Amino acid sequence: LKVFSLNSNLKLAEDIADHIGTTLGKCSVTRFSDGEIQINLEESIRGCDVYVVQSTCSPVNEHLMELLIMIDALKRASARSINIVMPYYGYARQDRKARSREPIAAKLVADLVETAGATRVITLDLHAPQIQGFFDIPIDHLQGVPILSDYFEAKNLDDIIVVSPDHGGVTRARKMADRLKAPIGIIDKRRPRPNVAEVMNIVGNIEGKTAILIDDIIDTAGTITLAANALIENGAKEVYACCTHPVLSGPAIERIDNSKIKELVITNSIPLTDDKKSDKITPLSVAPLIGEAI
Amino acid sequence: LKVFSLNSNLKLAEDIADHIGTTLGKCSVTRFSDGEIQINLEESIRGCDVYVVQSTCSPVNEHLMELLIMIDALKRASARSINIVMPYYGYARQDRKARSREPIAAKLVADLVETAGATRVITLDLHAPQIQGFFDIPIDHLQGVPILSDYFEAKNLDDIIVVSPDHGGVTRARKMADRLKAPIGIIDKRRPRPNVAEVMNIVGNIEGKTAILIDDIIDTAGTITLAANALIENGAKEVYACCTHPVLSGPAIERIDNSKIKELVITNSIPLTDDKKSDKITPLSVAPLIGEAI
Ligand SMILES: Nc1ncnc2c1ncn2[C@@H]1O[C@H](COP(=O)(O)O)[C@@H](O)[C@H]1O
Ligand SMILES: Nc1ncnc2c1ncn2[C@@H]1O[C@H](COP(=O)(O)O)[C@@H](O)[C@H]1O
Repeated sequence: LKVFSLNSNLKLAEDIADHIGTTLGKCSVTRFSDGEIQINLEESIRGCDVYVVQSTCSPVNEHLMELLIMIDALKRASARSINIVMPYYGYARQDRKARSREPIAAKLVADLVETAGATRVITLDLHAPQIQGFFDIPIDHLQGVPILSDYFEAKNLDDIIVVSPDHGGVTRARKMADRLKAPIGIIDKRRPRPNVAEVMNIVGNIEGKTAILIDDIIDTAGTITLAANALIENGAKEVYACCTHPVLSGPAIERIDNSKIKELVITNSIPLTDDKKSDKITPLSVAPLIGEAI
Repeated sequence: LKVFSLNSNLKLAEDIADHIGTTLGKCSVTRFSDGEIQINLEESIRGCDVYVVQSTCSPVNEHLMELLIMIDALKRASARSINIVMPYYGYARQDRKARSREPIAAKLVADLVETAGATRVITLDLHAPQIQGFFDIPIDHLQGVPILSDYFEAKNLDDIIVVSPDHGGVTRARKMADRLKAPIGIIDKRRPRPNVAEVMNIVGNIEGKTAILIDDIIDTAGTITLAANALIENGAKEVYACCTHPVLSGPAIERIDNSKIKELVITNSIPLTDDKKSDKITPLSVAPLIGEAI
């Protein structure tokens, strides 16, 4: 068994290797002068079960191509199995044709990973669990809810309500609420008539409660910060937020800092690069969870 | 028949469409806030023979993923055939395992393009013609030599010798020499003993002649500028250089400007972006050549 890291999430890869009592395999993943990826495996992997850790977070196309070229190199170097650990699955939100003549990039990514030669995929909180069906190879789908719930449980907060910021996330909120023995609420965004501003209707009794918003991905943080502010305006005592995948692009950090969110709890499926720091953010590690799955 | 352009080489795509008497199909190829590619076809292509123009030049991974996602969108929108026009084929130099445990990225790219759903590929001067065999779909392999030769023929230069800057390019130099009815020369770089500097041995009589150096790709321009200077030092009257694919990364422009090359003739398989301008460079268009092939 050998674990290799590419360039997206070196720290997590080290922690995973550490957790299973090994060290990272040696390989160099650099760029030629013209930007083409150059990969060289610096140790033999013939006959080995190889694990490659790579989140396809931003820059997604660079990270995805690193992964595909690495799989090709491993295949040609006679690995026995090529197991992809992809804590964050880029392009997961393009999982269906929302409009006509759109691609389904999440399926394309699955096809590319298989074509390159992967034999198994380990991933975490896919935007839609149906993406599992895009693969014809085994896929292990891990869940972030237990890690996030345990953190909040240890805080011993009083009178909690777990709130989903939209309809799509209610199942996830339900899972967390079960673990925290709390009720659930839903932010029910509706546009009463076309060209009329959306109203934030809150389903569930939040009066005086500590609300925990949960989502899978926080990207530009528009949804979650508007939800948090609506909860406070409607009588919640305080609002925590959490997610598995901190994409945090564009105005995300500014919005979070300026919002009514007291603390944002995330996992390290995507590393917090220097441009994504905020005092409100608490990162939790998924290394033990992934280590168990390996 | 519909022609679409992605973001690598819009001008060439327009010229190709123009040459075959049509205009470019409408599609938007943009980025989401987190850098993921968003493609939407803005006209129906159901039942059409679609041509997509995209060179996988720098940023190669962005351009390649645009191409793959576009192919996916076309496939799902019921195109009758999906024809990829890839004037420059990125990763072509990773066409074999030069060392052990290396990937063969040129083959991976072929597999990815087929997996996405391409039905035919049109390309130009592959770094190795063997790359044609990496595809299981029809591939048209066009040649830049006639275009480059015609340009030099029209200049009416006296006493020409066509020179290959290395052993690998002799066949290409031979083709140009045939068209120009000129002899060929070869720069025969050799390291006499390990740890001794390379010597530039020139095979062929260049004394007093006008040398034309020809290569397929000029990337950092190290090889071609050293060759040009060696030719002048060894008695050539003047030195022209030409290539099909002006990658021109890193120190290329500076090296060319400071070299003994009088004029560098290239094609527009890769666009000359603003950081790649030099008074010595003359670009020729491959639009008519590609237009004929469509
Ligand atoms: N990278 C992305 N950033 C923002 N929106 C996206 C991205 N990828 C897909 N989408 C859009 O997000 C929607 C899917 O999100 P959802 O409805 O929550 O499943 C679709 O309408 C997509 O067009
Ligand atoms: N993008 C690139 N930039 C520079 N060198 C490359 C690139 N891709 C591959 N190579 C190297 O170039 C060599 C192939 O060039 P050649 O011997 O001319 O076919 C191989 O040793 C590769 O390692």
